[in-house]
Amino acid sequence: MKKETIYDKSALLHESLGGKLEVCYKGSLESQMDLSLMYTPGVAEPCRRIAANKDDVYKYTWKKNTILVVTDGTAVLGLGNIGPEAALPVMEGKAVLFKRFGGVNAVPICLDTTKPDEIIQAVKWMAPAYGGVNLEDIKAPECVYIERNLQDLGIPVFHDDQHGTAIVVASALINAAKVVKKEIGELTVVMSGAGAAGSAIIKMLHNLGVKEIYAFWKEGIINATKADEYDFLNKELSEITNSTHEDLSMEEAMTRADVFIGVSVPNRITPEMVASMKKDPIVFAMANPEPEISYQAGKAAGAKVMATGRSDYPNQVNNLLAFPGVFKGTLECGATRVTEEMKLAAAYALAGLIKESEVNPKNIIVSAFDPRAVPTVARAVSEKAREQGITRF
Amino acid sequence: MKKETIYDKSALLHESLGGKLEVCYKGSLESQMDLSLMYTPGVAEPCRRIAANKDDVYKYTWKKNTILVVTDGTAVLGLGNIGPEAALPVMEGKAVLFKRFGGVNAVPICLDTTKPDEIIQAVKWMAPAYGGVNLEDIKAPECVYIERNLQDLGIPVFHDDQHGTAIVVASALINAAKVVKKEIGELTVVMSGAGAAGSAIIKMLHNLGVKEIYAFWKEGIINATKADEYDFLNKELSEITNSTHEDLSMEEAMTRADVFIGVSVPNRITPEMVASMKKDPIVFAMANPEPEISYQAGKAAGAKVMATGRSDYPNQVNNLLAFPGVFKGTLECGATRVTEEMKLAAAYALAGLIKESEVNPKNIIVSAFDPRAVPTVARAVSEKAREQGITRF
Repeated sequence: MKKETIYDKSALLHESLGGKLEVCYKGSLESQMDLSLMYTPGVAEPCRRIAANKDDVYKYTWKKNTILVVTDGTAVLGLGNIGPEAALPVMEGKAVLFKRFGGVNAVPICLDTTKPDEIIQAVKWMAPAYGGVNLEDIKAPECVYIERNLQDLGIPVFHDDQHGTAIVVASALINAAKVVKKEIGELTVVMSGAGAAGSAIIKMLHNLGVKEIYAFWKEGIINATKADEYDFLNKELSEITNSTHEDLSMEEAMTRADVFIGVSVPNRITPEMVASMKKDPIVFAMANPEPEISYQAGKAAGAKVMATGRSDYPNQVNNLLAFPGVFKGTLECGATRVTEEMKLAAAYALAGLIKESEVNPKNIIVSAFDPRAVPTVARAVSEKAREQGITRF
Repeated sequence: MKKETIYDKSALLHESLGGKLEVCYKGSLESQMDLSLMYTPGVAEPCRRIAANKDDVYKYTWKKNTILVVTDGTAVLGLGNIGPEAALPVMEGKAVLFKRFGGVNAVPICLDTTKPDEIIQAVKWMAPAYGGVNLEDIKAPECVYIERNLQDLGIPVFHDDQHGTAIVVASALINAAKVVKKEIGELTVVMSGAGAAGSAIIKMLHNLGVKEIYAFWKEGIINATKADEYDFLNKELSEITNSTHEDLSMEEAMTRADVFIGVSVPNRITPEMVASMKKDPIVFAMANPEPEISYQAGKAAGAKVMATGRSDYPNQVNNLLAFPGVFKGTLECGATRVTEEMKLAAAYALAGLIKESEVNPKNIIVSAFDPRAVPTVARAVSEKAREQGITRF
């Protein structure tokens, strides 16, 4: 189907549905007795028990399985800063995915403020009725600051644009390395894009133990020698990338690279750059909808393994493989946060869904509709949380 | 069923349901094409249209039929200030009622702040994704201040404990007056309780045109001569009650009363006080679960018409008769606020559900389960909003 047709058809669908979400109730409400049990006077009893023991809120309410999806509308899809109202269709869509794939209730909140400290304050105020918070489509570096300052809230706060993407990229890289028979620890990576997704990918690859990362943002390579000019996020990235502090162009860096990872702009790299990479290049070109280099051009230039963000080519990097399972897993055990170790466990578990014998250039990531993905990620995440002793039940 | 049994059974029901609410999605999400229409890339189109025309958020999202139920947990049922977590079972219950009776989606928000200006700020920040706000179980006079300062938000903000109760009481009084063949304009009312519900009832009775109101709070009769000692709310009430500025005891005031209305504490009035009232006393004793005087005692003492908050006696005053219809009606026409005129229209419409010929001492209010109540209130509210020119569609 043509893009134009998809857009028109989607608008029509949204209008005819009248929004994609609704709030439903469980149980029955047909008699005076139902009313006495679901509402007054009976409801006073769970209230009293929670007042006596706050953790009982997980026992008697929807908190245990319900999260907020919070945005300020500053970085929505590829559309940019379109404001909180215009962000709502995406937040509703995200909530649909949470329910469909993770069985998790998600409530969209589109905040009428873009000030990081106000967003932090709003989330803190809203927290009592919710078991987790998925931050969404908030621009970098603010998103990192906001998420970091909410880590002690007592419920998991997770920015999917950062870590959902990073988990799936890491899992894909684990399998891609197997295809080209290289160790993770000997890989040199060129990274194009250092915003929400890019910065989280860089940190996760660093934690995975890759040898070297050259990270490029809109003003060139990130280099610790320029740290004084950087915002806090670029400064942090400069400490774990470009260990030799060289002012390389992307062309130069690519000649040293085993792996290219792009979360940036269409057509960022050329076939010549791919051809200049080390033996058996791994190319993850994930700009949407047009990648940094097309699947065909990348393969023709010699890429051994290619992945994109698109569903019409092999190896789609889709964070749908991560976020429903991450929240399902944390909610099931009442984890108080999502740790770096839990994210790495998710990445390895996702990679492990493809047997060593079945890993090949066209098969490093399972399909977004693979029914094993969510329970596998959820189990890995909750087992790691238990191991770390940060669970509530 | 005994109260103890109802409480235990309700706790068990809440636990087995795992909370009473869930977020559901409409439409289907089984294929890659579904994903492209419900989420990316298709969802970009409704986003773009809303970015171009903010009012399109009512066309493409759930905003049109979804409200927030917001509390700070300071005045929950008869339980008082039990905090936001313990308030959640009631907020979920309220959301169940909104859906079951009004077809309206309602999302509970239990705020971790009790400062009125912070609650106002939180509601403003959360507003973009929601078509209305039902304030709930916030203590007086803060609830009045909060509601008043949110009236220009562009969506209806309505505190049910105030106006839901007032609408149903007013409608009951309209019919009770018919029973005793008195005009509303000649009624003298003794009011026990001047908090959230009490203050709103007083204002609505004033707007209905009753002749005199004597209002009692915990420190006796409200009297304009003491206005300097009052908070802003009592000060306002002193301007529309006790026109002769007398320091009456409730016993004294009752001898002048055609009507007693209680939203206060159990056993506040005696049979002797009822017996001392003017001919054909009307007694609305709505303290919960034990009224200001029991139904039997009130009738025995000579009350011609009695109403309580209880479902096991005739004439239950239940704000369930008002709030689902009020929001259904405002959302259907996109009313930007709930005006006093809309509330009065709701009261008259509700009273009108009982034909003149069928009004009698045991039949001044329809049952909470009467299927005509919600559509009747909704129609009255939206017609009045259209007449006032404050609708969006």
